[in-house]
Amino acid sequence: MQTNRTTPSRLAKRAQYDEATIHPILDEALFCTVSYAIDGQPMAIPTAFARKDDKLYIHGSVGSHFIRSIERGAPVCITVMLADGLVLAKSAFHHSVNYRSVVIFANAEKVTDEAERMEALALITDHLIPGRWEDLRPTTDSEMRKTTVLSFALNEASAKLRTGGPNDDPEDEQLPTWAGVVPLKIVRQTPIPKEGDALLPLPDYLV
Amino acid sequence: MQTNRTTPSRLAKRAQYDEATIHPILDEALFCTVSYAIDGQPMAIPTAFARKDDKLYIHGSVGSHFIRSIERGAPVCITVMLADGLVLAKSAFHHSVNYRSVVIFANAEKVTDEAERMEALALITDHLIPGRWEDLRPTTDSEMRKTTVLSFALNEASAKLRTGGPNDDPEDEQLPTWAGVVPLKIVRQTPIPKEGDALLPLPDYLV
Repeated sequence: MQTNRTTPSRLAKRAQYDEATIHPILDEALFCTVSYAIDGQPMAIPTAFARKDDKLYIHGSVGSHFIRSIERGAPVCITVMLADGLVLAKSAFHHSVNYRSVVIFANAEKVTDEAERMEALALITDHLIPGRWEDLRPTTDSEMRKTTVLSFALNEASAKLRTGGPNDDPEDEQLPTWAGVVPLKIVRQTPIPKEGDALLPLPDYLV
Repeated sequence: MQTNRTTPSRLAKRAQYDEATIHPILDEALFCTVSYAIDGQPMAIPTAFARKDDKLYIHGSVGSHFIRSIERGAPVCITVMLADGLVLAKSAFHHSVNYRSVVIFANAEKVTDEAERMEALALITDHLIPGRWEDLRPTTDSEMRKTTVLSFALNEASAKLRTGGPNDDPEDEQLPTWAGVVPLKIVRQTPIPKEGDALLPLPDYLV
């Protein structure tokens, strides 16, 4: 949704507010950064997360200072960024980055429904490693008691994207400097089994 | 430097304060997230940066709302995270992430010295693409006038790291669930030349 605080001051044409743009970015990104403020002092924590419908979930230890600081409904700003490429222009000034980012303004809500809490943990696990959750032993009551799950509404979220090559000044176009894009990609490398576990077969979802 | 706000409430053994740990993380990470607060409302922006000695630099348009919000010395929290691997344990509860992160508390300082401003732009360019700056035409006075450079002291920075395999509960050790680490890596893919520029040779620093 476009509101004052989701409207960028610069390059507003890069901003988008539709779920069809925002949700896939959230689903592809592995981590988000949750920013909050205590007495005007900004604080920020990178963390795992997952999205379902128009909610974003994070989790943490019930004892975490971060979690306790926001669980009563503190306003947060959650950012996600996928860096797709380095954009090399003819001038330093027009160098840029191809990216897909999402900024969310929301207030933390502590999830209390046990079924929703469990589902959120499954979503967070499967967001990082799709297919993992159903391979695991059930989470115990004791583990659940040690875990806080927070949700955030996505109704004040915006996406910002840049794609394509450099936008050079006309007078620079003929410079003999190489220009273009160096694509960036996060790759999952060969899994390393836990010591003593080398004989267990690699699950399909890791192949 | 260890201060109250750089001492984590959880897993404090993972925190480190020495430059020999912090600087290489900052030098390897391509982007940081700068968090600030306006009237208690947290805001955060992912951006490029560079480090020199015990200063971190960012830049932006003189017209940017973000830059103007912090350039007069606002307190910020800058976070950097390198995600090194997904840690798969026998239980969902002990799943984790191998990471190297840095959290910096600082106040923005607007850089006014022209030589330092130019050097910061060179550092930011070469941080993303080492060797690029000296290949580029000189930055013009007009470009410099459109650009704000901010610096942040690194004296209140801390690093947090996790390495190694999963830490399973003893009673889970014998479960036949695959456990271990899936390493993550950001790779630079084959450069894509700008349209019309395909005949220019690829510079050594992109090979």
